[in-house]
Amino acid sequence: MKKYKAVVKVSLRENILDVQGKTIEHALYSLDFDMMNNVRIGKLITLDIEAQNDGQAEAFVEQAAKKLLSNPVIEDFTIEIIE
Amino acid sequence: MKKYKAVVKVSLRENILDVQGKTIEHALYSLDFDMMNNVRIGKLITLDIEAQNDGQAEAFVEQAAKKLLSNPVIEDFTIEIIE
Repeated sequence: MKKYKAVVKVSLRENILDVQGKTIEHALYSLDFDMMNNVRIGKLITLDIEAQNDGQAEAFVEQAAKKLLSNPVIEDFTIEIIE
Repeated sequence: MKKYKAVVKVSLRENILDVQGKTIEHALYSLDFDMMNNVRIGKLITLDIEAQNDGQAEAFVEQAAKKLLSNPVIEDFTIEIIE
């Protein structure tokens, strides 16, 4: 078994309203950061995983991302496996 | 003024207990994903920004990250500016 590090980026789909992002955008405006817009907030999940190879590690993480780490109805995710 | 995209990754410092990460770790175990551990949850913030150049864009985003997007006492952040 080899050890890998996995990075899962979970973000709301483009057409879903990001309420948390809008709130931060308004806070930025009130702090005079009005040159910024279209703020979107996602999750950055890192974890350690043991697997026989990087393909198996990615398959495990993909299952976990679909079942638990993301909500497939409103979120997309990308996976990166690092040795 | 040019338009840039900024990606800010905010994560808890290494020595801070990640309660949300631990909760997800336990949920992973109960779903038989016991090959995974050391789960850490961070924020992935993307935004559009107008600035004269990428150096100015990065300086603006760094100020915003320090003032609003992160809690410097318990969190670290990295910034990436994309043209």
